[in-house]
Amino acid sequence: MGRRKSRFLRKAVEPFTIVADATAENVLERMERISFQGRNLATARRIWEKMLGSDATIFLGTAGALSAGGMRLIIAHLIEHRYIDCLVSTGANLYHDLHETRGRRHFIGSPTLDDAALASERIDRVYDTLASEDEFCKNDEWIAAFVLKLERRPYTSREFLYKLGEHLWNETGNRGILTAAYQAKVPIFCPAIADSSIGMGLSQARHRDQTAGYVDVIGDIIESANVVIRRPSTATIVLGGGTPKNFINQASVQAEFYDDRVGGHKFAIQIVTDAPYYGGASGSSLEEAQSWGKLSIESEKVTVHCDVTVALPLLVTALESTSRDALHKRKRPEFDPSGRLLVVNGQPLADNRYQEP
Amino acid sequence: MGRRKSRFLRKAVEPFTIVADATAENVLERMERISFQGRNLATARRIWEKMLGSDATIFLGTAGALSAGGMRLIIAHLIEHRYIDCLVSTGANLYHDLHETRGRRHFIGSPTLDDAALASERIDRVYDTLASEDEFCKNDEWIAAFVLKLERRPYTSREFLYKLGEHLWNETGNRGILTAAYQAKVPIFCPAIADSSIGMGLSQARHRDQTAGYVDVIGDIIESANVVIRRPSTATIVLGGGTPKNFINQASVQAEFYDDRVGGHKFAIQIVTDAPYYGGASGSSLEEAQSWGKLSIESEKVTVHCDVTVALPLLVTALESTSRDALHKRKRPEFDPSGRLLVVNGQPLADNRYQEP
Amino acid sequence: MGRRKSRFLRKAVEPFTIVADATAENVLERMERISFQGRNLATARRIWEKMLGSDATIFLGTAGALSAGGMRLIIAHLIEHRYIDCLVSTGANLYHDLHETRGRRHFIGSPTLDDAALASERIDRVYDTLASEDEFCKNDEWIAAFVLKLERRPYTSREFLYKLGEHLWNETGNRGILTAAYQAKVPIFCPAIADSSIGMGLSQARHRDQTAGYVDVIGDIIESANVVIRRPSTATIVLGGGTPKNFINQASVQAEFYDDRVGGHKFAIQIVTDAPYYGGASGSSLEEAQSWGKLSIESEKVTVHCDVTVALPLLVTALESTSRDALHKRKRPEFDPSGRLLVVNGQPLADNRYQEP
Amino acid sequence: MGRRKSRFLRKAVEPFTIVADATAENVLERMERISFQGRNLATARRIWEKMLGSDATIFLGTAGALSAGGMRLIIAHLIEHRYIDCLVSTGANLYHDLHETRGRRHFIGSPTLDDAALASERIDRVYDTLASEDEFCKNDEWIAAFVLKLERRPYTSREFLYKLGEHLWNETGNRGILTAAYQAKVPIFCPAIADSSIGMGLSQARHRDQTAGYVDVIGDIIESANVVIRRPSTATIVLGGGTPKNFINQASVQAEFYDDRVGGHKFAIQIVTDAPYYGGASGSSLEEAQSWGKLSIESEKVTVHCDVTVALPLLVTALESTSRDALHKRKRPEFDPSGRLLVVNGQPLADNRYQEP
Repeated sequence: MGRRKSRFLRKAVEPFTIVADATAENVLERMERISFQGRNLATARRIWEKMLGSDATIFLGTAGALSAGGMRLIIAHLIEHRYIDCLVSTGANLYHDLHETRGRRHFIGSPTLDDAALASERIDRVYDTLASEDEFCKNDEWIAAFVLKLERRPYTSREFLYKLGEHLWNETGNRGILTAAYQAKVPIFCPAIADSSIGMGLSQARHRDQTAGYVDVIGDIIESANVVIRRPSTATIVLGGGTPKNFINQASVQAEFYDDRVGGHKFAIQIVTDAPYYGGASGSSLEEAQSWGKLSIESEKVTVHCDVTVALPLLVTALESTSRDALHKRKRPEFDPSGRLLVVNGQPLADNRYQEP
Repeated sequence: MGRRKSRFLRKAVEPFTIVADATAENVLERMERISFQGRNLATARRIWEKMLGSDATIFLGTAGALSAGGMRLIIAHLIEHRYIDCLVSTGANLYHDLHETRGRRHFIGSPTLDDAALASERIDRVYDTLASEDEFCKNDEWIAAFVLKLERRPYTSREFLYKLGEHLWNETGNRGILTAAYQAKVPIFCPAIADSSIGMGLSQARHRDQTAGYVDVIGDIIESANVVIRRPSTATIVLGGGTPKNFINQASVQAEFYDDRVGGHKFAIQIVTDAPYYGGASGSSLEEAQSWGKLSIESEKVTVHCDVTVALPLLVTALESTSRDALHKRKRPEFDPSGRLLVVNGQPLADNRYQEP
Repeated sequence: MGRRKSRFLRKAVEPFTIVADATAENVLERMERISFQGRNLATARRIWEKMLGSDATIFLGTAGALSAGGMRLIIAHLIEHRYIDCLVSTGANLYHDLHETRGRRHFIGSPTLDDAALASERIDRVYDTLASEDEFCKNDEWIAAFVLKLERRPYTSREFLYKLGEHLWNETGNRGILTAAYQAKVPIFCPAIADSSIGMGLSQARHRDQTAGYVDVIGDIIESANVVIRRPSTATIVLGGGTPKNFINQASVQAEFYDDRVGGHKFAIQIVTDAPYYGGASGSSLEEAQSWGKLSIESEKVTVHCDVTVALPLLVTALESTSRDALHKRKRPEFDPSGRLLVVNGQPLADNRYQEP
Repeated sequence: MGRRKSRFLRKAVEPFTIVADATAENVLERMERISFQGRNLATARRIWEKMLGSDATIFLGTAGALSAGGMRLIIAHLIEHRYIDCLVSTGANLYHDLHETRGRRHFIGSPTLDDAALASERIDRVYDTLASEDEFCKNDEWIAAFVLKLERRPYTSREFLYKLGEHLWNETGNRGILTAAYQAKVPIFCPAIADSSIGMGLSQARHRDQTAGYVDVIGDIIESANVVIRRPSTATIVLGGGTPKNFINQASVQAEFYDDRVGGHKFAIQIVTDAPYYGGASGSSLEEAQSWGKLSIESEKVTVHCDVTVALPLLVTALESTSRDALHKRKRPEFDPSGRLLVVNGQPLADNRYQEP
């Protein structure tokens, strides 16, 4: 031929080969050289490793029925071992976590069950997963009772969820997202807490005492942006999209208004099932996020179009094998989320004004 | 043959035929006899008509970039003509509405534009749609300035958004979602207001005055449930899923705890692009909702798997032609959302306790 | 402000407004200024109009259960009025068309019917649509009987389907895809005929007479490329993806090997529901097609991510109102598909060698 | 409570836990107790194991860009170790396999590359994967040259592909799908061969010699049904949908016309990304397949909504660890696909009449 190979054709696809008893890590490593979402999932591990090796504050966003679907102890693991520094979650994921931490269970069902029969037995269905509505009602009451013990003042969702995790730990001693975050002092934000059963529990406390159950979600906006201002190098890992995806980006955008050092997240991973072409935020591309400054133009980023229940067990199992050193060495922020003000590396962050430099 | 036709084979598919200059109504009418999502869209109109002919309070949930994408005057129309009674929205849809009501615009772009170039010109992209970030920043300031004029106390998102619509109307006199809701006295709930630029505006007010910008989203939970308790016959129309979808269902579930007459929505339409099989709430089926009691077992319901920007113009144009009488005759609730307490048909609803019968 | 507006922000989104009794055309016209898939659908009409105003040979590809789903008379209309020049279809769409042209019906069902009950009554389900398996078996026999009347030699699918349409017309006098194509002398290719009930009918003829039922699908490849070579300006409209999508592109790519004037389709519309990011052909982007030369770099093109049963009734109804002149004036090819060789504008095309210029 | 637990709430979801260095098998085993598509993927392994432990003839269908995307040696492995007995494939997967078996490569690219630049360098893009068009042209010529060496008569795709694999093996000695099938005597059907570059190669042979390149795809229909009639216990594994999915089902349906012992596949796994609600065959549910008799009402079945490049490496790696015994013991059919007639367990199957019992 004599013709020079195109600059585009540099790195060949390596067909995946079957190796008996291969570890998850080995499987994922070899998926880096295949195509499509398999390659993207493998790339997600590399980017996560780079996050851990950097000085970035790592945000994790969790949406979708991850806790009901069996993902809650993976998220707890990520918190305990500080694969992440700050969780932003839907209320449902925290509620279904609380349900199991309190010793209740979700059950294996099927999407073709008879919903009228389920309703008559007071069983709630989440696609192929079931739970007892009566147990859910008891959770709501348990939350309401806890809320009524709190001092009467507005709480950011972050402070409230810390105290909820503390109470849950003290009462149960069980692992879960809320209790792991309590123990590891990892802050949790829940911007849409009003759209969840945790919110319902808060409202039931209010029903009994009209001075109870005030959540200051606007304080959460300021506090989360101040986390970015304090340490302007940040990373985002999004599972499922939803309000957490935007809230993590909003923290960066809002921070940049007040501090020029902030320039968008430096790393981004999202595992989503929504398509970008309908315009919704959950499916929006990471390139689009760059136009807004949510992501740095130079950021390393990958979107994995996949159900989290397929992608996350493989991804985190593989990561666990290769990230021990990085976890030990990483320059992570130390939080104290126990008080009205969130403390980062010994210094409190305001929740009512942006921390201008 | 002499053989009896199966009971399953009663109503034949009628192939759609092309008629020049046919109206949207005529097109949609004939789509009732085709299959798949076309039939579902046509069925949505029939169910909406039944809602209008019933005594149901009709909730509309709006998620996805509907306002940026050109749907905001359809939603305003639905409010003005009382195709719906209560709106539950993401903050983004209200914010992008406010942007245009204030005289700014969104622009036609393309998903393949260079995001680095857009970022350098401070242009934000939403898939194929663009807007000026500088104009967005001015909106935030405008919102903050408005917030600082308000009396210092917590506001439900419903009360806050009414006042925001009022201010917007007084300043601009322009049609839009917020201003239409103000004029038609249709309440708007925004449970995830903290995850939006309206929330950012509120936070900027707080930044200037730490006593400002308190939103009582837990009050919204109680108030929305009390709307259901007051009139237990309800209907839900969901565009895009997201927090509004669940919040509307939560209102019914929460109401049922306190009032046995509540038995789930009587009618349900959802136009969504998420698939049910990943377990997320946005894509969850209406059958699943029945297991939870969110929907009555006898409810009339349809899911349309389609982008709202395709489905809604056709659906509402057709509905407009056939619903005039029904709109005039309908037994709709009359709201007064102007005060701290939401007034329904002359009677205020509590925001701090559930209205037990 | 005095600041110059960005070059990116030239054309504003115009919010869609509700107009009672608006025609489909008027609805679609105003959808050109909204966003997302609504805008894309509106753009599809403009591109189709440009196709009609050009000298392009227009290919239509049909996949998915369009005929069972009520789309067959739209496709027949497109053939009769020469909105298109050449159809490439899955076998299923032709088979379900034949079923109805023979006077049988598909029926309205539901996706939640009990499939065991349906099986016991010999009813076949296509999502929410039903048909009698016994009637299908009779179709197969009818096809086999027809095949046995044909001279024993291999037929391209194009020649075979012309004769099938002719026989169907003579026996029924009913409109449909096959009969419209027969009467309008529009060629139909079915490259995957072996994967369909038409193929099953052919095989049953073979079962009775082993010299019957030979389809020369390789001849189809050559003939379809020769259609492009004869008139190198081409356009593609794809509904649903599948084998027709690739076959239409393959015709262009193959033609270009033999004729430098061929440079990819000049116009492209696709209405698909598959996502591009899994790598499959049905969801592949039109940009990707440009890398292969399937589409000209300068082509006008649009992808509409939407179910065909929603998009097509609106699109073609609107097109019908605005394209009468263009249809009369268009420089379309005249085919005679009745013989072993396809005749274009009076000249036969080889089916066993590429027509080198 | 004293209240009996509902019959629906028997088997709890077990949250997945992270274990360092866990094997793929161990990961997948624990995914059986989570939810959504993760559970479905884990279930797929159990069903595949049951297939291997039964007397079923196992069909594998492959569609989508699996070979270009790095899956071809997994498929070769499945053939070599007789995890499957018969392959039904799109032409593209066989063509891209041939490309690599001939020593050429696919390359790692990105979906955001400039397609005009790629076109100018004659590089073809498949989402994030690239290949040289010049190399593709040489493949086509290589195929044409091979076709011209064959005796001039129609070949079923099965016979043709066996001979193609044989030639490829003799020339290269390299592993791949075609060469593995040749060596393991596993038949391959390609019903849509006319819609692929293998078909293009055949057409180029015809161009040089008009007596060459006849593929008898109707013979494939009969032969594939006769495979089912010979051994009425069957199983189907579908990757990606497309023509292979239906062709495998069609073989069972067609067989049942002639042999009452055939009652639909006994086991079914499909890994697909298409949604069922648009009515297309690729996304159609396995329940729907039961209404047609494609699947037995008692069949064990699972759909995994996932990209094959994510699911297959994990699934087959895990299967490899647990299936050795089953593979050795399994009662598999022995094929000889080398001649005009396919031989099963020493007895030839007709290709021109159905094997009535």
